[in-house]
Amino acid sequence: MINIEVVLSPALLHLSNVKDKNVVVIDILRATSTICTAIHHGASSIKALRTPEEAKLMSSHGYITAAERDGNKLEGFDMGNSPFECMNGKVQGKSIALTTTNGTKCIEAAENARARNVYSGSFLNLKAMALKLASEQTDVILLCAGWKDSFNLEDTLFAGALASEISSLTETDIDCDAALMSMDIYNLAKSDLVGYLKKSSHYKRLSHLHHEEDMVYCLQHSVFETVTGLVDSEMKKIV
Amino acid sequence: MINIEVVLSPALLHLSNVKDKNVVVIDILRATSTICTAIHHGASSIKALRTPEEAKLMSSHGYITAAERDGNKLEGFDMGNSPFECMNGKVQGKSIALTTTNGTKCIEAAENARARNVYSGSFLNLKAMALKLASEQTDVILLCAGWKDSFNLEDTLFAGALASEISSLTETDIDCDAALMSMDIYNLAKSDLVGYLKKSSHYKRLSHLHHEEDMVYCLQHSVFETVTGLVDSEMKKIV
Repeated sequence: MINIEVVLSPALLHLSNVKDKNVVVIDILRATSTICTAIHHGASSIKALRTPEEAKLMSSHGYITAAERDGNKLEGFDMGNSPFECMNGKVQGKSIALTTTNGTKCIEAAENARARNVYSGSFLNLKAMALKLASEQTDVILLCAGWKDSFNLEDTLFAGALASEISSLTETDIDCDAALMSMDIYNLAKSDLVGYLKKSSHYKRLSHLHHEEDMVYCLQHSVFETVTGLVDSEMKKIV
Repeated sequence: MINIEVVLSPALLHLSNVKDKNVVVIDILRATSTICTAIHHGASSIKALRTPEEAKLMSSHGYITAAERDGNKLEGFDMGNSPFECMNGKVQGKSIALTTTNGTKCIEAAENARARNVYSGSFLNLKAMALKLASEQTDVILLCAGWKDSFNLEDTLFAGALASEISSLTETDIDCDAALMSMDIYNLAKSDLVGYLKKSSHYKRLSHLHHEEDMVYCLQHSVFETVTGLVDSEMKKIV
């Protein structure tokens, strides 16, 4: 029996007992989708860092540097935060130092709260992620990165999708209103995720920045089977 | 044009600019429902206080004292937090000093953040509340009290209901994912709110404490037309 809890914002994480639980960090548009994509495309590791300065410093250690703030790639870095920058052999065998507006600090927060494992969540490998979590029979916290600590729809939708998928694979105990709401919202939206999210604040924000292709990509369901999680404080291929 | 924002937990209130906005504090089970009921049944005012000690002290100033923690009435107080304690003339013409687990601190927080007006939200006077807010043409923040800072379903449902009702009365601008989600969840649940909420954590908590009658009462839609809001730091009849 796996207990599943959804945390709707990093600012609410202190209310949950994270220790020894499996935490899935969720920043669908786009950090954790990009991390999963980079690992699937052969990156050897991704180090999530809080500040652009920290990410920049990793250049001298042979890392590709990647930085995004407010949806934009920062100048002076090798990459921004688009999954398309990780394809066609560009990250094959490479390590990446990544800092983003929302997602990367959640990875650190989950690690600091002594989670058993910290995974990177994405629709792209949803089924593989659910299989891994179900096989581990450890309680799960789904941590939505949100937008600058505010609630957002796309991370909530993924939390609902993953909670539903785990529940279809193994016995679960869901006594968390945020998880119940997430599952209901996912059910409502699942037939047309892109259409549903067009009303969301972040979709609009990224559309203005011409990232529509990224968003459509990030909302694809279970297109690869790689699972990405923290090993020695870097995101690596687990499955 | 009224901008509507939903804040899903008092722990997220700092992310919003509250100053000069109308704030509706929402603690459906049961603080704000009880406050609206008390005013509708003729209480002259309700002073929301953080601690039982503060509420107790008001006894010497002629207040009825009311205190609830974790769903239970505290010993040594005149009342707990049940709307039924406010009926049949029991509070007619009286002032009440009230402290509860979740709702009362939100009233103080909204006042401290310099809201233009602070209202007490309940399904019981939903239409009257929406009419008042629509008539004022001031931006609105719907502040869910939650349960000890965690997200809950019943406050979210009411936020969705009120946002929908205001939108049916006047032009609104809703660019807040929490508001969009709340409206969708309300739409999903509105045909049977009691049935929908039976899965929620707080409904289960209160059921164990035999408060089912309270919950069915608090989920009634627009049964009176009194509007309750802060005047000189006490909740009073506004309409």
